[in-house]
Amino acid sequence: MTYLNLKKHMQRIADVNYASAVLSWDQEVFMPVNGAEARARQLSTLAGIAHEMFVSEKTKNLLNESINGKLTENEKINIERLQEDLKLKTKYTTEFVEALSACTSASFNAWQEAKNKNNFQIFAPQLKKMIELKRKEAEIIGYKKSPYNALLDLYEKKCTTEKLDKLFDDVQKQLVPFVKNITKKKSIDNSFLFYHYNKQKQWEFGIDVLKKMNYDFNSGRQDQSSHPFTTNFNTKDVRITTRVTENDFAEMLWSSIHEGGHALYEQGLSDEEYGMPLGEYTSLGIHESQSRLWENHVGRSASFWKYYYPILQTYFPECLNEIKEENFYAGINKIEPGLIRTSADELTYHFHVMIRYELEKALIEGTLEVDELPKAWNKKYKDYLGLEVPNDAKGVLQDIHWSHGSFGYFPTYSVGSFYAAQFYSAASKVIPDLELKISKGDYQELLLWLRKNIHQYGRKYTADELCKMATGEELNFSYFMDYVHQKYSGIYP
Amino acid sequence: MTYLNLKKHMQRIADVNYASAVLSWDQEVFMPVNGAEARARQLSTLAGIAHEMFVSEKTKNLLNESINGKLTENEKINIERLQEDLKLKTKYTTEFVEALSACTSASFNAWQEAKNKNNFQIFAPQLKKMIELKRKEAEIIGYKKSPYNALLDLYEKKCTTEKLDKLFDDVQKQLVPFVKNITKKKSIDNSFLFYHYNKQKQWEFGIDVLKKMNYDFNSGRQDQSSHPFTTNFNTKDVRITTRVTENDFAEMLWSSIHEGGHALYEQGLSDEEYGMPLGEYTSLGIHESQSRLWENHVGRSASFWKYYYPILQTYFPECLNEIKEENFYAGINKIEPGLIRTSADELTYHFHVMIRYELEKALIEGTLEVDELPKAWNKKYKDYLGLEVPNDAKGVLQDIHWSHGSFGYFPTYSVGSFYAAQFYSAASKVIPDLELKISKGDYQELLLWLRKNIHQYGRKYTADELCKMATGEELNFSYFMDYVHQKYSGIYP
Repeated sequence: MTYLNLKKHMQRIADVNYASAVLSWDQEVFMPVNGAEARARQLSTLAGIAHEMFVSEKTKNLLNESINGKLTENEKINIERLQEDLKLKTKYTTEFVEALSACTSASFNAWQEAKNKNNFQIFAPQLKKMIELKRKEAEIIGYKKSPYNALLDLYEKKCTTEKLDKLFDDVQKQLVPFVKNITKKKSIDNSFLFYHYNKQKQWEFGIDVLKKMNYDFNSGRQDQSSHPFTTNFNTKDVRITTRVTENDFAEMLWSSIHEGGHALYEQGLSDEEYGMPLGEYTSLGIHESQSRLWENHVGRSASFWKYYYPILQTYFPECLNEIKEENFYAGINKIEPGLIRTSADELTYHFHVMIRYELEKALIEGTLEVDELPKAWNKKYKDYLGLEVPNDAKGVLQDIHWSHGSFGYFPTYSVGSFYAAQFYSAASKVIPDLELKISKGDYQELLLWLRKNIHQYGRKYTADELCKMATGEELNFSYFMDYVHQKYSGIYP
Repeated sequence: MTYLNLKKHMQRIADVNYASAVLSWDQEVFMPVNGAEARARQLSTLAGIAHEMFVSEKTKNLLNESINGKLTENEKINIERLQEDLKLKTKYTTEFVEALSACTSASFNAWQEAKNKNNFQIFAPQLKKMIELKRKEAEIIGYKKSPYNALLDLYEKKCTTEKLDKLFDDVQKQLVPFVKNITKKKSIDNSFLFYHYNKQKQWEFGIDVLKKMNYDFNSGRQDQSSHPFTTNFNTKDVRITTRVTENDFAEMLWSSIHEGGHALYEQGLSDEEYGMPLGEYTSLGIHESQSRLWENHVGRSASFWKYYYPILQTYFPECLNEIKEENFYAGINKIEPGLIRTSADELTYHFHVMIRYELEKALIEGTLEVDELPKAWNKKYKDYLGLEVPNDAKGVLQDIHWSHGSFGYFPTYSVGSFYAAQFYSAASKVIPDLELKISKGDYQELLLWLRKNIHQYGRKYTADELCKMATGEELNFSYFMDYVHQKYSGIYP
């Protein structure tokens, strides 16, 4: 009975949080421009209400009372997770939350202006304040070794600089030379990706792929926004967005598949556990593993296009009839170092992440000053990608994350990709003829494997634990490198 | 200072209520089907939170403290209105609110099924319970003479059965014989309205009209939904919906203009007064006066089409090139008794309302039993409109209102139309060459008159008071009849 009351209370809090999510979704997708000011206030009120409801005596009492009842294993774990959450959230004073919120708004505005005007100095003072606050936050949370660990833990429980240093050391030692070697080889022609692709047809093709992926359009929808994202209001209303560019076929499709992968995770969480930790995703790294698995291991695979390329040609005969399937496949997997993270290929992408990781860790640990940041950024782009950064707008100002105070977020992109490789390898071992199935447009068993090994658990297990259960071992970079060797030795012989 | 705290508190409550409005809008416009269940719960949670916040000791204390401060006239009125609201809302026990909410869900579901299956008996038991609860509600609120007055007051302050009886008596004595006379005359051909009108072009024409009306698309947007409606999240985000039917030109356009009229009212409310009574519409009748004024007095006028008909012909030459402007004008104003309220012309529309008013008053006063309702409905359609009702789906089950517990709502449709005629007449007297301006597509001064005389005040004045201030007298049915005589003696010579 008490557990049920606890659950009801948590569901009410979830109702408020998901209402916020609807408002945020609308803000990105449909809101008229003048609506922004009031919307910001409405969102802040809802956030305040949800926070107050959660850190209330009521939550504490319900938790204390529930723990003594007769509980199932899952109920026990829910209570444990909630106690951890409550312990964390109650460390934050209202003053600190408000200071952080105010700094985020100011910092975001400064970043936007700085990026538009290509002037880092406009952003620098706010970024300094933000870093100061994030260091304070790390002190509030508490940490071992590096304050950066405290921030990491907010996105990826139990992830540490130790683990990441090891991982990016692998990237340095294995991926960097691999890519260096590739870029010496004959360049691949992918100019056909930049022909004229009718927007409506692109859209329809994307919807077709999403349906085949078993993204449930009765429990979701796709819209357009300037930055693609996934959001959920419960497991039966999980929405994605994409952007469609007439002269860049890649932009829309792989965004759709990527967000579709995120959405399948959310649609696969337990509906019964709405409002409880077991109904929530376990970490950003695991979330990203789902999007990357679909985007790269499925959506950029030879098997996928064996099925889909002839179909795609019927959508865009004028662009693709002259292009052979093998050249299309090579084109969409072209490796080419570039300045912008979000348009990077699946290999050099990790150099972008590594650079951000090294820099943000140094900023939080105090070994790098904000004023030195652009220089440090540019140097790393020269060292790791061999590129000159022409200006800060295309350099240190390109990403929104730091202006939002999201330090510790970037590494989860790479961690997610490496999990994806390991998961895909594990799934391949138990699903008979997986590649053959994919080459027939059948992803059913792959999805079932993900549902069974990842989605259903919510926060029951941490990323580490999930990975061990699903693959038999801890996160191991070699799966990613195996995938890379196998795939790219074919594309770049 | 205390007043400011009161205002902040009220704004937080408004934030929650407008968040609900966003969720409801999304539910009607974009939500995937499976999202319904969780959405209902989220909406109910937000409603509960807003209610708790409003009937709290905090509101009471802030009101009591504010009233003693140094206040402007508007601040005083805001406090008065809030005290009235609080007095009313605190009369409702949580049990009653919950019972009503549960009955509404059950009753709505029963009504939907009954309508689909064309079987009133499915709805009857729920309707009985609903009427019982609404009678209880009337007792809770308190009333003079008829319990129906208590319910009316929720939508239209100070409106009474006495006033409505008088008004509908005028309808009986003046409008009924006028329409009877018209229907004996030569029938008007409006078959061209049911040709094939391309949806996209209809949409574009509607947007063009809305822009000319000065509906601000930077502070709003139009979408499609099965039942057109207007909703607002603040004065700078006021959204409308319409529906587009390929074989019925009338459906989309006048819905757009109608909702556009509602939206201009909301966009014209005071942004400064967000969250306070002076930032809210004053009554449903006044709201409806704005939509009807634009829909009928502007959108169905000869002046309007003098400007717009040549433009419309360029949109749909294949439908309209053979149709003369005067025949188009007559066609869109064709008077023809029908069974369905929502597709009625602007004259017989009031017979539909009158029937509902008489029936719902009798239901609440206890002089009509639910089991007798279909028979009574059908008899009135025979008496007032001369029509046989073939089945309950096209009769007593056609409207959603009673299933929602909205008793006292229908009369505001007619009251609104009569206000519209009176307002339009008053505006004509002070705006030089209003018809000439409209015939040039210029509605600027008309809107300014509405902004100045109606919109800006919010709930500062009741409908009665507003009407006296804007027109010099109380609501007077003769303005509507004058309009009718003048317009229709031309159309039906």
